[in-house]
Parts: sequence; C-alpha cells; structure tokens
Amino acid sequence: MAATKIFPVIMSGGSGTRLWPLSTETRPKQFHALGGAKSMIEETALRLSGKHGDIEFLGPIVIAGESHRSLVRELLARSGITPAALVFEPMGRNTAATAALAALVARELDPEAMVLLMPADHLVARPEALIETVRAAAAVASDRIVTFGITPSHPETGYGYIKQGAALGDCVHEVAAFKEKPKLPVAEGYIKEGGYSWNSGIFFFRPDVMLEEFSIASADIRDGAAHALKLATRKDREIGLDPAVFSKVRAEPVDIAVMEKTKRAAVAPCDIGWADVGSWAELWRLSEQDDGQNVVSGSVSVLDATGNLVRAEGIHVSVIGVSDLVIVATPDAVLVMPRDRAQDVKKVIPDKG
Amino acid sequence: MAATKIFPVIMSGGSGTRLWPLSTETRPKQFHALGGAKSMIEETALRLSGKHGDIEFLGPIVIAGESHRSLVRELLARSGITPAALVFEPMGRNTAATAALAALVARELDPEAMVLLMPADHLVARPEALIETVRAAAAVASDRIVTFGITPSHPETGYGYIKQGAALGDCVHEVAAFKEKPKLPVAEGYIKEGGYSWNSGIFFFRPDVMLEEFSIASADIRDGAAHALKLATRKDREIGLDPAVFSKVRAEPVDIAVMEKTKRAAVAPCDIGWADVGSWAELWRLSEQDDGQNVVSGSVSVLDATGNLVRAEGIHVSVIGVSDLVIVATPDAVLVMPRDRAQDVKKVIPDKG
Repeated sequence: MAATKIFPVIMSGGSGTRLWPLSTETRPKQFHALGGAKSMIEETALRLSGKHGDIEFLGPIVIAGESHRSLVRELLARSGITPAALVFEPMGRNTAATAALAALVARELDPEAMVLLMPADHLVARPEALIETVRAAAAVASDRIVTFGITPSHPETGYGYIKQGAALGDCVHEVAAFKEKPKLPVAEGYIKEGGYSWNSGIFFFRPDVMLEEFSIASADIRDGAAHALKLATRKDREIGLDPAVFSKVRAEPVDIAVMEKTKRAAVAPCDIGWADVGSWAELWRLSEQDDGQNVVSGSVSVLDATGNLVRAEGIHVSVIGVSDLVIVATPDAVLVMPRDRAQDVKKVIPDKG
Repeated sequence: MAATKIFPVIMSGGSGTRLWPLSTETRPKQFHALGGAKSMIEETALRLSGKHGDIEFLGPIVIAGESHRSLVRELLARSGITPAALVFEPMGRNTAATAALAALVARELDPEAMVLLMPADHLVARPEALIETVRAAAAVASDRIVTFGITPSHPETGYGYIKQGAALGDCVHEVAAFKEKPKLPVAEGYIKEGGYSWNSGIFFFRPDVMLEEFSIASADIRDGAAHALKLATRKDREIGLDPAVFSKVRAEPVDIAVMEKTKRAAVAPCDIGWADVGSWAELWRLSEQDDGQNVVSGSVSVLDATGNLVRAEGIHVSVIGVSDLVIVATPDAVLVMPRDRAQDVKKVIPDKG
C-alpha cells in the first residue's frame, strides 16, 4: 500500500500578547524559541516532515500574516525547510477562512493528499504520539474531519472541551458534543466523568471533505477564500491573497463555522505532550528548571534567586535575591511580575507610538 | 569690599558602579540625572554659579576623564555653562593629583581666586546652606584648607569622620582628628559624643595654600601634576594632560596625601542636604515617592506594586504586583533586586566583551 501523503498546514496567525514583551505584533510568539531550540514555527514544520512508515509528510503549507512574509521566509530557510506553498493573509479573518484556504491550496497542489492543520505556536513534547494520532485519524479521514483531542491533565477552564461519542476506529470517536470553556466545577465534572478531551485546534482532513462541509455549513467563507485565492498575487511558491476580497470574508473560528455544524466531526483523543504556552507562568512550568527552580535563558546573571523565569533577548539581565518572578527583557521593553500574576500582562502593555 | 572670587572645581572622576546598569564606565553616575532634573555634573555646575552677595563664582574648572571629553562638553553646553577650563585626565590618579591640578590651573587662570573643590556626583538639597558654608570657609581660607564636614544624620559606617577642634571662626573649626570609616559602635559613639562630621570630600582653599601644603606633605604629586600640565595639549579652554607623565603621578586620596598631614586643616560643619547617592536603595530613600511608595522614572507602567524604585532609560518597563524592589533598565542591561540587596550590585555586573 502506498504511503498516506499529508500536507502539514501551519497556521501562523496568532498574536500572542500574553507573552509580551517577547511576543509582539511585529514578531509574535510563533517566531520565537519557546520550549525548543528553534522558533516554534520551525519546530512545528520540522516535527511534521519526512516519512514515518505509512505516513509521508509533504512540504508544509504555511498560512501567515502578510506583515510576516520575510520573517516566515527567513526562518524556514535557515532550517532548510522547503514549503509547498506560503499563503499570506493581508489581515486575520479567523481560523475558518484559514481552514478553507488550507483545503483549497492543498487540493490545488495535490488532490490526493490529506491535510494536517496545526497552529504554529503549540508545543508537542511527544512527537511520536502525534504521528500515531495522525495514523489513527488517517484511517477514518475518507469521510471525517478529525479534531485532535488532548487528554486533560487537570480541570483547565481556559480551553473548550470535546465529549467523545461512539468509537469509529482505533482511538477515534464520533463527537458527541463540543463544550465551551467551562467554569471550574463543570471542568472538574468532565475530568471525573471521563471521555472528554481539550479542543486543541489541530485538525486532520481530506481537502474535499472539508470543502464539502464548508459548502453545507459556511459556504460564504469557502467562496470568499476561493475568490481571494483566485485574485492572489503568485510568485514562486508564495501566494498573496487579494486584500479587498479577503477583508470581506466572514471572520469565525472553524470550530463554530464548520465543526459544530457538520455531521462528519470526529475526535482523536491523544496524549502528545501538548501545550499552547499561553503564559509566562506556563512556560516556566513546562521548562526544565535549574537547581534553584529558575528557568533562565539568554545573557543572565542570577544570585540567590529561586523559582524565577528570567529571559533576556538581545540585552543582559542581572537578578539578585528575588523569588517566583517572571522577568523578561528585550531591547524594547522589560516585564517584571510574580509568576502568579502572569494573566495580567495585557494590562501593562504600553500603547504604541 | 570686593566680592570673593571662587573657581568651582568639579571633580568628575568617579565610576559609580554601585549604580549599574545606569552608571557605567562609558557614562558614570555624574553624567546621569539622579535626584535632579539634569545630570549631576550640570546640577553641580549650575549650583556653583553666579553672585551671592560677597561671593562670586567664576566659570567652573571641570576635571574629568579623557574618555568623557565629548560628554562633558555636550552636557555643559546644553545647560549654557561656560567653563573656565576643562582638564582631562588620561587615567584616574585619585583625588590628590586632582586637587593639585585644581590649584595649579586655578592659579594660572586667576591667582587671586579661591577654589571650591567638589565631586560632580554629590547631591546638595540645600544650596543656600552650601553658600553660607562657602562664606564661612572663605573667612579663614587665607591660611587654611577647609574641609566641608557634613552633620551626621545617623551613625553611618560608610564614611570617614572628622573630629572638630577649637573654633577658628563662625562655623569653622580646627581639625582635631580624621577618623577612618568606623565600625557601628564607634560611629554610634561619635554621634552620642557630638562634634564629629562626615568627611564629604568637598574642600575650600586658596591655590597657593594648597600648593604649599603639597610641597610639604606630597611634593612629588604636585610636581607630577605640574609636569603633566606643562606637557599638556591645549586648545581653547581644553587641557589634555600628558599621559606618559600623568600615569606616573602617585595615586592617593587628597585626605591622606595632604589633609591628614597639614597643620592648616580646618573643618566647616554644615547641613547642606548632602548625599552621595551611593546605592539604588539610597536614591529611593532620597527621592519623592508616589502614593504607592514607588519612585518611578522613564517610560514605566506600574500595577499593584509598592515601595519599588523603577527606572527606565531608553526602554520601557512594565511592573506588576511586586514590592520593595529595585528595577533599573537601560538598552544594554536590566537589574532586578530587593532594595535591601542594593550593596550586592557589583556581584552581578557581567564581564565586558
């Protein structure tokens, strides 16, 4: 049997303000090294490459913001990644538009290939488990759109949940229900009851299946994306979507535009060491800590300090005698706060100009 | 009676590493605004200018490091200060050499004028009291070298002390003894006993008196300074000392080279609101605090934070929920520490290169 060919489609649209001052509009989170040696977008592309038994990844399709065009080019090139296509959105229109573009561009490049649609800014600590889940998803994808469901480690209130329905195959289930971000008692109930996964925002599908479901559930988004693609500027592998057309595409998450409406949704529960690194506190927790429980990177001097995340990029940071702080410095800005205030970052980002 | 003409001689030789990362070799403390709106060297020069009754300040003589030549020029110019002379030391040879240069250059410019020798990096909160003390010192300076003695506010162990002897005039005493930096019980004894002042490093003298005492106590330093001055490059008001000669001048504090040996030492006890801003903690204490007991300067965002010194120069700093910290950021480096660890700064200054 021939290998299953898959286009990794890497969504690089996030702005990541919770990781300010490292993550900025000019260079959001996915263009920085967080939890890996290379930038998250490179790590994501490298993770989804090569042949793994009966699974073969083709060159990635990257869908990113137009303002990050040269950054995307540069980062992929420095890791020797040859993309199948680079699609640039003149503005963000949420993930439904991106998913439609993923299906349209993949089908254009190779109508037989599958799509693994994945954000550029997620950590996957167990890539071998990711491949296993892709394999399981591929087995049902002739007729299903498969969401990767993360096995919850705790009753997180920051993610949506997916309730698993009847088994469709090895490690793949029908979706019984999508659940909004729950209150804590509800989340605790999900964990206790079992059979729930976090909604990761990772999808596996055949392009034509996704496009059919768009036609049923949100045809306008599919048509808008197709039109913006038709009028796009194209050079080499780069596609610049038409701004006038794309700006009018309805902005909606793919979960709402398609997944909650389609009858062909499936969920593949998996334990892939997933994290979306949603805050500095979470990065501290996920990272290897030194003897003083500090997580330190860049040019940093530390004396008598414990439990801190200290990150210096293009600037030196010296720290004496403090505990449990987040200290992040770039040539533009410095952030100092206790780890347990990490959710308040947005309140102290200065206005631009 | 004609006014007493005085050359302020401003010693700008300090390196101020305790105020890193703001203060650096390239731009030490005296070239920054600390406790005033302008840089300390400008504040010092502006404070010692103009006519005050029978006291008339001439243009200042600034003695600074050769590497700071353009910085000194620039800062004086922007405050409209016209120096009588700028003397540049190719390397630091401690304050005795500087005091000899002060006397030699002042005598050359105007043999009738007195010298007020003062470090560029001291705060004087009560300039009117400084003028009063100058007046008192001038009254005895025909035959005396007058040290300004700061009335102690607490038993500080970081300064030398001067024991006052017999009164020489209004607010001027003979020096009974110079005392090294004392242990705390000794300092407490001085305060209890009374009649002791902190040794400020501010001196008032007639150039010929100082030069005579150099001839008696440390003739080699006087001769070395005179030789370096003779071979100096001169252009406009700028004097660049000869490096080969000046490097061989004996490096010693003027207190030891002259003051502890001369029989003509006097002390003028005064309460001029003096501070040498020896640490970030001291700057916090000396500065006006806001409602949250924070001392903030530069582009800073503060949320739920109390008792901090936050200083941003050429970079933005955002602070959430921390207390009693020193946070200082420049485009090169960031320092974060509790205020009570301020004396440990030197331990975390990174090596250059």
